[in-house]
Amino acid sequence: MQSSEKNKKEVRIGLLGASGYTGAEIVRLLANHPYFGITLMTADRKAGQSMGSVFPHLITQDLPTMVSVKDADFSSVDAVFCCLPHGTTQDIIKGLPRHLKIVDLSADFRLRDIAEYEEWYGQPHSASDLQLVFPIIQKEAVYGLTEISREDVKNARLIANPGCYPTSIQLPLVPLIKAKLIEHRNIIIDSKSGVSGAGRGAKEANLYSEIAEGIYSYGVTKHRHVPEIEQGLSDAAQSKINVSFTPHLMPMIRGMQSTIYVEMSQGVTMEDLYQQLRKSYEDEEFVKLLDKGVVPRTHNVRGSNYCFMNVFPDRIPGRAIIISVIDNLVKGASGQALQNLNIMLGYPENTGLLYQPLFP
Amino acid sequence: MQSSEKNKKEVRIGLLGASGYTGAEIVRLLANHPYFGITLMTADRKAGQSMGSVFPHLITQDLPTMVSVKDADFSSVDAVFCCLPHGTTQDIIKGLPRHLKIVDLSADFRLRDIAEYEEWYGQPHSASDLQLVFPIIQKEAVYGLTEISREDVKNARLIANPGCYPTSIQLPLVPLIKAKLIEHRNIIIDSKSGVSGAGRGAKEANLYSEIAEGIYSYGVTKHRHVPEIEQGLSDAAQSKINVSFTPHLMPMIRGMQSTIYVEMSQGVTMEDLYQQLRKSYEDEEFVKLLDKGVVPRTHNVRGSNYCFMNVFPDRIPGRAIIISVIDNLVKGASGQALQNLNIMLGYPENTGLLYQPLFP
Amino acid sequence: MQSSEKNKKEVRIGLLGASGYTGAEIVRLLANHPYFGITLMTADRKAGQSMGSVFPHLITQDLPTMVSVKDADFSSVDAVFCCLPHGTTQDIIKGLPRHLKIVDLSADFRLRDIAEYEEWYGQPHSASDLQLVFPIIQKEAVYGLTEISREDVKNARLIANPGCYPTSIQLPLVPLIKAKLIEHRNIIIDSKSGVSGAGRGAKEANLYSEIAEGIYSYGVTKHRHVPEIEQGLSDAAQSKINVSFTPHLMPMIRGMQSTIYVEMSQGVTMEDLYQQLRKSYEDEEFVKLLDKGVVPRTHNVRGSNYCFMNVFPDRIPGRAIIISVIDNLVKGASGQALQNLNIMLGYPENTGLLYQPLFP
Amino acid sequence: MQSSEKNKKEVRIGLLGASGYTGAEIVRLLANHPYFGITLMTADRKAGQSMGSVFPHLITQDLPTMVSVKDADFSSVDAVFCCLPHGTTQDIIKGLPRHLKIVDLSADFRLRDIAEYEEWYGQPHSASDLQLVFPIIQKEAVYGLTEISREDVKNARLIANPGCYPTSIQLPLVPLIKAKLIEHRNIIIDSKSGVSGAGRGAKEANLYSEIAEGIYSYGVTKHRHVPEIEQGLSDAAQSKINVSFTPHLMPMIRGMQSTIYVEMSQGVTMEDLYQQLRKSYEDEEFVKLLDKGVVPRTHNVRGSNYCFMNVFPDRIPGRAIIISVIDNLVKGASGQALQNLNIMLGYPENTGLLYQPLFP
Repeated sequence: MQSSEKNKKEVRIGLLGASGYTGAEIVRLLANHPYFGITLMTADRKAGQSMGSVFPHLITQDLPTMVSVKDADFSSVDAVFCCLPHGTTQDIIKGLPRHLKIVDLSADFRLRDIAEYEEWYGQPHSASDLQLVFPIIQKEAVYGLTEISREDVKNARLIANPGCYPTSIQLPLVPLIKAKLIEHRNIIIDSKSGVSGAGRGAKEANLYSEIAEGIYSYGVTKHRHVPEIEQGLSDAAQSKINVSFTPHLMPMIRGMQSTIYVEMSQGVTMEDLYQQLRKSYEDEEFVKLLDKGVVPRTHNVRGSNYCFMNVFPDRIPGRAIIISVIDNLVKGASGQALQNLNIMLGYPENTGLLYQPLFP
Repeated sequence: MQSSEKNKKEVRIGLLGASGYTGAEIVRLLANHPYFGITLMTADRKAGQSMGSVFPHLITQDLPTMVSVKDADFSSVDAVFCCLPHGTTQDIIKGLPRHLKIVDLSADFRLRDIAEYEEWYGQPHSASDLQLVFPIIQKEAVYGLTEISREDVKNARLIANPGCYPTSIQLPLVPLIKAKLIEHRNIIIDSKSGVSGAGRGAKEANLYSEIAEGIYSYGVTKHRHVPEIEQGLSDAAQSKINVSFTPHLMPMIRGMQSTIYVEMSQGVTMEDLYQQLRKSYEDEEFVKLLDKGVVPRTHNVRGSNYCFMNVFPDRIPGRAIIISVIDNLVKGASGQALQNLNIMLGYPENTGLLYQPLFP
Repeated sequence: MQSSEKNKKEVRIGLLGASGYTGAEIVRLLANHPYFGITLMTADRKAGQSMGSVFPHLITQDLPTMVSVKDADFSSVDAVFCCLPHGTTQDIIKGLPRHLKIVDLSADFRLRDIAEYEEWYGQPHSASDLQLVFPIIQKEAVYGLTEISREDVKNARLIANPGCYPTSIQLPLVPLIKAKLIEHRNIIIDSKSGVSGAGRGAKEANLYSEIAEGIYSYGVTKHRHVPEIEQGLSDAAQSKINVSFTPHLMPMIRGMQSTIYVEMSQGVTMEDLYQQLRKSYEDEEFVKLLDKGVVPRTHNVRGSNYCFMNVFPDRIPGRAIIISVIDNLVKGASGQALQNLNIMLGYPENTGLLYQPLFP
Repeated sequence: MQSSEKNKKEVRIGLLGASGYTGAEIVRLLANHPYFGITLMTADRKAGQSMGSVFPHLITQDLPTMVSVKDADFSSVDAVFCCLPHGTTQDIIKGLPRHLKIVDLSADFRLRDIAEYEEWYGQPHSASDLQLVFPIIQKEAVYGLTEISREDVKNARLIANPGCYPTSIQLPLVPLIKAKLIEHRNIIIDSKSGVSGAGRGAKEANLYSEIAEGIYSYGVTKHRHVPEIEQGLSDAAQSKINVSFTPHLMPMIRGMQSTIYVEMSQGVTMEDLYQQLRKSYEDEEFVKLLDKGVVPRTHNVRGSNYCFMNVFPDRIPGRAIIISVIDNLVKGASGQALQNLNIMLGYPENTGLLYQPLFP
């Protein structure tokens, strides 16, 4: 076992909701982080248990015993990753001390428009004080799509960490929309995700025997990530964009691909699209535009914080096909969360994120 | 072992190219066929071997030893399934006796336009007699998308059995196009296939370690099934249609889904689309329009000859999303081939095709 | 859809516990059964629902709506398959009319010794009438390992259908033990199973993300199938045998392999073992001894009622390795259940069981 | 992309046979190694290509172009990892300059007895100079099962890196045999491996469609790792041990489990076994004895250099069951290779090996 000195590091990290997949992924990434040490872990239903009993692959880590969030002493931590379900998250976060830096992986602070949140997540804010507090926090929250909003992340206290689908979609589309290279109409997004995105909850639908050796679409046009995607693209366009978005569940644990079908603006060429993406991301460590013609594969990024992308001419003149891939648990969740906290606290952005893709 | 009397049936079947996956699938389907018995099997590289040595799951079948196609005695068979590679197929089929009913699973007779064949399959017909013969045979061939061209199949001598992607795409689109319910422009087809469609050839790209736990697009806009799809849709439209078609490789053995994004024609509603598909297929045994809102899954049709489909409203007004699923080796290949031969020879269309889906 | 006449067949079948995997598998097998038609289906938590809503791959079947078992009219059925959990099963079966033929897929009637049942299944029979009734029913039950106890099955009213592991283990071992070819000591059984054997219950442990891409042993020496295995082997030996049995969970839906390490009796050769198994099974349709040296694979039997087996010399002199494979849901559960009911009712044993293995 | 300065590190590494899976795994592990930089890569069939074109997940690494081994300049490197096929390896290694530290991942130098090598690998050393040279090199080679032979590794010039199966088997058995806690007879080893161990060669047997959703034994009692396992155990016992060893191929990319059935020596208890393993490995970073009763799973070690093990009482008195798991490409190949080179060159043993297990 690693020494118990291990977690005596510069920054004391609290991990809320540690017993889910995104929590375990935070632990994996922080294992080799030289500055961040986990000193508080909460998991209500697993309170009193060790992380190693819940995730045996983590027995080699020297970690604090999990406690219930209501018993957590937040005075002893400097920053928290919040991996709680939406809804619950609001209540917890509004009660946290103001000195904390917070990266929230739930959906609760991603949408600027509360009415839209209530429509898609199906729950009004029932407590009156929450109704008062929530918008204030919301204003405070910065949407942490790192490469797009890095400057805002630097000074944020609370990060709304993007969803996995929105990350894979906005990274290629935002620069192209901002540069007015693609039309706002008829953006067709066909996304495919590994099943780990559904979390560790025991659901019949996610049993091995139900998922292996087959695929299907789900939430056709009604997936909760729609408003988040449209908010980001509309911001880039400075006008309202509606997209067609169909997610599909794949028989794989990790990995996400978005295949995006767009119309190029009048007079725009494939080369324009390619060069814009090149320019946007050539200095980025985690976002890679592949050589022309090379197809990104989810296999290429498994276990890593990379987003690989490319753009292809369509057979229909004037159209293009954009493909981007990420690991839904890393760049699509815990990896981007750590990338954001590194920035908020002034550490090199890639600290703890040097895990290379696992292939084969 | 089953008695050697087993294959003494009304119709003597020859199976050319028996050692690939579509060949093995023909054997599986015919195992319980009361009228068709396999009396000739060819496999050039496996000549002299038993089918049970090449496919151990078939040891319980009483089958003839495989011979080289050049040593085959075609006078003793009544009909053949041809599971040979494209290119080779032309040469073999033009030399077969005229009394034979033939169902060809290759691409060689699917395209009406020889020039288009040569463009997409990259090979001119080098032998001069073949160049003469080929168009004649081509004229003779009937494109066997059973539910669409059943009447032509009845009288055909040679069936060009459709490709798997084209089957999954044309079944829902042809009736909608014929009924002028959808626009011809901007038909976006995002297809996903299991890897068995790539056949049994030893290729690095199809190793378990390269396929499992990841996905990717391939042949972006350049897949060889494009001209076949466009031929079928253009025929339905009576004008040239170009589609956007992007296939994806899935970590699963069998199964294919096409997610198709279309624009409805002016004044057309979702209900119109649904009712048209209902009307087209309500009497069909193998094509099923699901109840409204129910998502077809490839799991639902694994191992069976069914095509399940449904249509969904898109978030973008005026658009619709069509989903169809098949088992690529059954309705997408060997099952539809048997369905066609049953019709050609006057037997009930579903004979031998009663395998129910294997789930879980 | 198939005609509602379909299920008007000679024998009216009741299916209790239809909403689990073994229930769905019974439906798949009966789909093409010419004599058995399902006229009653129960599923307490899904009462009022159609089978097609619970298992969409079965929408093409014309089946009765599921009812609660307490609302079932058993006077209108001739035979039942009981796919209920152990414990519950006792209560239901003791209350069934005596005219019914019953095949029970639970563990409740497999063990001759009630004390052993209570030890391994952890539940005494609490109701006093049940304590009285249970042994009587128990005496009535016939253990339905078809090839071994076919004669008893013929006249049985209640079949205790064997567990999947015990089936894969007893089929090769019972004939060898009866013929005194192997020692009773140190029988080491290392079994591997697909996850469908764990059923459709929503458990974290059986999620795709927990099962895919990894393996593990479970229930080391403590699996509930131990007493069933030992009962069968001890009966064959006419003396008490204790075995070492370690099951492993595999990242696959269906399939089970038992790799069995035994000591040959003094003077016995590999050839003796091979010839004994040949003799025992040469006339059997569903149990196949492979050619010498050919390794059985679970792929070979997927979706079918076959058991493939073979025997290999060990590197350690005097020892042998026996390998048997089955599909845990077919020969390991629903297929053997149907095989038994066919026999009980005087129909050809393979009726409805002609599904050939699905490969690839 | 990472700076080209990246590989200007203290130790210049040559990687021979870079285009296979073990080669790619070395690159993954060295990506974050502060002292070792790859400055030479060979791959005969891929000479002239970049690693990123052969393994797209490695495009973010700044690596030398691959050259043919005959064109390699070995004067500019300090150490090599040799990932070449057995047979070829001998020829290459005997020609390398004597200043090089070498870790060889092939089987060529693992067996002390040349006759045994020739028997199991089926090839005599045809060149006469090789026949002379080979035994000399052989004598020089140190068998690098790190935790067992760490002291010898320190001073070695040439490491014969252990096979994956032998690693998973010897780590638990060697200490128990040395301590005379288990009998030498009847050691039954049932091993299960992911398919990546078979390498990247294009073979029909390793296609996704042949491997997924099924399992099988291979090389029953004849696998080439047998003599390596027996050599290691016999050394520990100081007398000849023959084992029963049956490997099985699993539908998973990475991971290996050995389930080992042993007889305890007279008077020995389970507690003795557990305490011996505890004592042997309590100070080891990469070998972990789990808490009593906790079952090791290959999921726990995926992508990491860990070996997890545990010991369980058998149902048969006097016997025990030992389970050990590793990632076959890390502790079973490239990870242990790096562990060895770290030691040979005086760096902390875990340098570059801090990748935590990837789960889910």
